[in-house]
Amino acid sequence: MRIIVDAMGGDYAPGPQVEGSVRAVQELGVEIVLVGKQDILQKKLDETGYTGNQITIRDAADIITNDDEPAKALRRKKDASIVVAANMLKNGEGDGLVSTGATGGVLAAGLLIVGRIEGVARPALAPVLPTDKGPALLVDGGANADCKALNLLQFGIMGSAYANNVLGMKNARVALVNIGAEEHKGNDVTRAAYEMLKKAPVNFTGNIEGRDIMDGAADVIVCDGFVGNVILKLTEGLAATLLRNIKTMFMKNFATKLCALGMKGPFSEFKKKMDYTEYGGALLLGLKHPVIKGHGSSDAKAVFSAIRQAQKFVSAGVVEKIKEDLEKMEETQYGIES
Amino acid sequence: MRIIVDAMGGDYAPGPQVEGSVRAVQELGVEIVLVGKQDILQKKLDETGYTGNQITIRDAADIITNDDEPAKALRRKKDASIVVAANMLKNGEGDGLVSTGATGGVLAAGLLIVGRIEGVARPALAPVLPTDKGPALLVDGGANADCKALNLLQFGIMGSAYANNVLGMKNARVALVNIGAEEHKGNDVTRAAYEMLKKAPVNFTGNIEGRDIMDGAADVIVCDGFVGNVILKLTEGLAATLLRNIKTMFMKNFATKLCALGMKGPFSEFKKKMDYTEYGGALLLGLKHPVIKGHGSSDAKAVFSAIRQAQKFVSAGVVEKIKEDLEKMEETQYGIES
Repeated sequence: MRIIVDAMGGDYAPGPQVEGSVRAVQELGVEIVLVGKQDILQKKLDETGYTGNQITIRDAADIITNDDEPAKALRRKKDASIVVAANMLKNGEGDGLVSTGATGGVLAAGLLIVGRIEGVARPALAPVLPTDKGPALLVDGGANADCKALNLLQFGIMGSAYANNVLGMKNARVALVNIGAEEHKGNDVTRAAYEMLKKAPVNFTGNIEGRDIMDGAADVIVCDGFVGNVILKLTEGLAATLLRNIKTMFMKNFATKLCALGMKGPFSEFKKKMDYTEYGGALLLGLKHPVIKGHGSSDAKAVFSAIRQAQKFVSAGVVEKIKEDLEKMEETQYGIES
Repeated sequence: MRIIVDAMGGDYAPGPQVEGSVRAVQELGVEIVLVGKQDILQKKLDETGYTGNQITIRDAADIITNDDEPAKALRRKKDASIVVAANMLKNGEGDGLVSTGATGGVLAAGLLIVGRIEGVARPALAPVLPTDKGPALLVDGGANADCKALNLLQFGIMGSAYANNVLGMKNARVALVNIGAEEHKGNDVTRAAYEMLKKAPVNFTGNIEGRDIMDGAADVIVCDGFVGNVILKLTEGLAATLLRNIKTMFMKNFATKLCALGMKGPFSEFKKKMDYTEYGGALLLGLKHPVIKGHGSSDAKAVFSAIRQAQKFVSAGVVEKIKEDLEKMEETQYGIES
């Protein structure tokens, strides 16, 4: 299996991208194509001491950044690393794609170059949220700021296929983010989506409120991309704020500093549980081939995890599973109109 | 000044409602009318040992609960405590109203009995979020699951008036919840609201992302009620999950238990900072008279804080301030159509 790594995007690129790729080749047995500026990547690769032939480099002179308007950049920067990488994926020169570049660029390349699975109205960004009971999949984490009920239905179906086949869940619990637990709660879109999800080939457990998300009350958390983006970033921000406050508490005086030493072990365990880098990146669900969007601040471990995630995605045949489930839905009264 | 207290709603009613009222009479110099079942309230009041004449009781035989469909319950349960209380407020038998009852009932009574300020399209629920830098006002916290840009504009104006005049802020920073910091981000509604807020008589500081909310990057956080409800409940849930995990860490072994003792002081301070009961309840912004919705699980201190909040709301003349600011907006190109 060959994974294409867009090695130029991300806060610390291309160091972690190259190092994570070397580790992936050694531990996962995959081949890697690094896409980006040839000379820079070759130099980084040499620095790691890797001399095998499982990693190749594809030259790409340009980069799409957060300052670019994605769709425009896609047309103008034909030689940007994410554009080259997405075209390779489309043309079968690799089985999956990992990028830690600008989200807009990755989304646009996925949508416009790699393309949607037939029947999928809107692909979604699906990051993994660390909850108290383990990882949960958030669909949509920010790709679609406005959604119809049909989109939410498909997010549930696609998320369920991924959770069951890649995250190793059995009969993943799919829940709809809402402002109350009762069936009639919410707005027109969530009420219609509720009705559709009840009839979908997923284990739909009903509405989930904000307060239950972190408790691990669901495995696949369905919402529009606006709400999902707020959930994702609020969680990150609140966790950071709380951890910073706890650190300040431990630095207060001599006694609390002693405690800091005593608590080091349990705290590391907890931080590991809540560490997003353990879970790789966010999937683009609904594309013809697997695309993983890693966090911009990914370190080598996060890049490695994202590559492992792409590998599992391919091995498990998630794209085929999604197609099958969508076809099942077509047979019910809520047909899929793309 | 006389505050009407709906004493029958809430998880532990009417104990905390009566006790909080007694404290308010003693410390704030307000008069209180307790609304609810006469005999039960009189018994509770006697138990507190209060013998003054600043607290009176108005009998109301019924209660609206979370199981009721609010608008229907309002018509059918004419003798419910929140209905009686709202009618008293409307008729000038009190200056403000505090209820810890079912949110739907309080909202419906506020909207349909107390009534909107002329020009306000949609009143909003405005809870106080404890952030790292102090309290921030979240508007809308859950009253309107669907919003237009005009609603968001008015939420900003009303929230600003309250923050400056009651929360003691100078030139409160008003920010719009969005999925990116840049002006063009978001959906049609947030983009239009952004344009309107730029021209509003408030200190609009632009978009705010989920990750910056808990940092205290804004004083008035504007969003639709769906997103606001998710923010509110996710914050509550995440804080509870993290605190529970920290407790578990401290109970791990003898050394960590010793640390728990050492950290008790700093932790209490931190919990106080993050304690919603410090800040009273959620306002209903945009009504003709002040209505405060306290948390269902309010203790006596939270009820006391909510009464103090109602007192400040009345003294500061926030309703008049909101009217003035809305009139200023009418003179600009974004007139208020109710």
